Amino acid sequence: TFIRGIQTVTLIPGDGIGPEISTAVMKIFEAAKAPIQWEERNVTAIQGPGGKWMIPPDCKESMDRTKIGLKGPLKTPIAAGHPSMNLLLRKTFDLYANVRPCVSIEGYKTPYTDVNLVTIRENTEGEYSGIEHVIVEGVVQSIKLITEQASERIAEYAFEYARNNQRASVTAVHKANIMRMSDGLFLRKCREAAEKHKDVKFTEMYLDTVCLNMVQDPTQFDVLVMPNLYGDILSDLCAGLIGGLGVTPSGNIGANGVAIFESVHGTAPDIAGKDMANPTALLLSAVMMLRHMGLHGHAKKIETACFDLIRDKKVLTKDLGGNSRCSEFTEAICQRVRDLD
Amino acid sequence: TFIRGIQTVTLIPGDGIGPEISTAVMKIFEAAKAPIQWEERNVTAIQGPGGKWMIPPDCKESMDRTKIGLKGPLKTPIAAGHPSMNLLLRKTFDLYANVRPCVSIEGYKTPYTDVNLVTIRENTEGEYSGIEHVIVEGVVQSIKLITEQASERIAEYAFEYARNNQRASVTAVHKANIMRMSDGLFLRKCREAAEKHKDVKFTEMYLDTVCLNMVQDPTQFDVLVMPNLYGDILSDLCAGLIGGLGVTPSGNIGANGVAIFESVHGTAPDIAGKDMANPTALLLSAVMMLRHMGLHGHAKKIETACFDLIRDKKVLTKDLGGNSRCSEFTEAICQRVRDLD
Ligand SMILES: CC(C)[C@H](C(=O)O)[C@@H](O)C(=O)O
Ligand SMILES: CC(C)[C@H](C(=O)O)[C@@H](O)C(=O)O
Repeated sequence: TFIRGIQTVTLIPGDGIGPEISTAVMKIFEAAKAPIQWEERNVTAIQGPGGKWMIPPDCKESMDRTKIGLKGPLKTPIAAGHPSMNLLLRKTFDLYANVRPCVSIEGYKTPYTDVNLVTIRENTEGEYSGIEHVIVEGVVQSIKLITEQASERIAEYAFEYARNNQRASVTAVHKANIMRMSDGLFLRKCREAAEKHKDVKFTEMYLDTVCLNMVQDPTQFDVLVMPNLYGDILSDLCAGLIGGLGVTPSGNIGANGVAIFESVHGTAPDIAGKDMANPTALLLSAVMMLRHMGLHGHAKKIETACFDLIRDKKVLTKDLGGNSRCSEFTEAICQRVRDLD
Repeated sequence: TFIRGIQTVTLIPGDGIGPEISTAVMKIFEAAKAPIQWEERNVTAIQGPGGKWMIPPDCKESMDRTKIGLKGPLKTPIAAGHPSMNLLLRKTFDLYANVRPCVSIEGYKTPYTDVNLVTIRENTEGEYSGIEHVIVEGVVQSIKLITEQASERIAEYAFEYARNNQRASVTAVHKANIMRMSDGLFLRKCREAAEKHKDVKFTEMYLDTVCLNMVQDPTQFDVLVMPNLYGDILSDLCAGLIGGLGVTPSGNIGANGVAIFESVHGTAPDIAGKDMANPTALLLSAVMMLRHMGLHGHAKKIETACFDLIRDKKVLTKDLGGNSRCSEFTEAICQRVRDLD
């Protein structure tokens, strides 16, 4: 994947506003002279032998080779039995950690200031096992699956993330008072990881208590680690605190450096193709990607340009409270990136 | 339960600050001349035949007779295998609906104003089934149980609650995109109830989306109905929006008028016995109780006195930002109650 120091990244533009915001990111990367070469792939699911849904082989092949993906929003398939593409991607590449830094953006007003936390969500099991049965007519059970292996892996990841990102504490979020065995196992693995990482402070808290404390004072939290469904909930809650999915980056991390970074907002079909989209979430996800690849200088430059522009309030897309077009917002970031050189 | 128009209520003072705040409520009820006679009972669990944990027979007998309970906080038992007393009470009296009105309190500042919503939580099944297994070493499953009967009952309750309380809409909160069968069943029952109650608007929303929207603009919500765990989470989150568990009332409703109203905060052992506790949550729960019993005039009077006092900011307990004692706060409400006559 190295051509004269240039790394290849698989780009999945996605649906709706996906192509526009992907173009915006590519332009800004170009302005920042980020040593990235894009390999565009489509991920509309196809049916393999036996009707099994899978992502197209040329996308799989690209990701297997580049190891790094950047992904725009994907429309939810409507065919019966069609899996969520997001879930299929997480599964195909065993992206076991979903990481979402939620940091208040200066100049973008929400009820909270100084939010600075990261949710780390187990991405492969729990309530997302997909195992469900009808026991008798009118009685259904869904199975939440928690394994030692996956719990250990995510707990370990959380502590390593904290250490590598100069974060002081990890909070395990659970309901082990109710799900004593499953969340109990998860919690035990977090405690064991805490024992191995004494440099990072460890606390544990019930999910309901976290939610209550979070809306009262989010500044008390740092890194939070939790099973799949709790992460789904809490990561969206925290995104809400800083301004929503339009400004929140996300990364799905697997083993051996494999990772897909994505904006987690929708495809916004109503404004698609109208040069009105806000590329911030995808751009900040791409910044996370640069850091993951060790390109810290480029990451810092792009991030600074983006945050400076938002703080300045002169060129903003509609959803951010301005009336600039996506292309104008993009061009303004490019200009600032160049100015930072 | 009627003696000259006086109804008997089972009072479970609870642990820690429980007795103090119960005394406060009794004093205020007396000042308001509420036609209530209290029957105090202790609920420390005892072990019946076969080691089964149960609530003491004299408490069970009282509740069976009075049908209405008011409960302070209970300390979490630490004995292995000891159930949560809250869960045991819900189970013993089949209190299938947990109802929590979250309404902004004028004068008590939080990041939100004009919150006015009610969470209605299925209280008997779902993730709280207590069924868990080790499949093989290191692999655990917890079972989430959703039944047609319980889903129908809670959906029906939510719509009836909306109608009886002049509320315009019910939102079903779910993750049927992931738990297609279990949450799917729950959602189907909500849709069926909506069909029967066309006077109330019905919407459905994913739990993660609700959390995100909730912290961005809670005023968009009205009545929300959901399975057990989601209700645990969302009811605490919403309590956080209006100032926390110290000011949030809660009711657990069963069939045939049976109900237990409770403050859902902790026992606060650090301030227990020091005349520092805030009785607001228990008092507002008791106000819910009065309405449940049809005593709307007394409910209104007490509620008005309490909210007026808080708005006034002169006599407030420490947690509310003042420096008055529990007894002073209580006496000030009593005075206002008398003034309202
Ligand atoms: C799209 C959906 C399957 C997904 C989830 O529930 O995990 C989404 O909410 C997310 O957080 O990525
Ligand atoms: C005490 C605990 C078992 C309980 C729960 O998880 O339901 C509590 O959080 C609640 O909301 O009443």
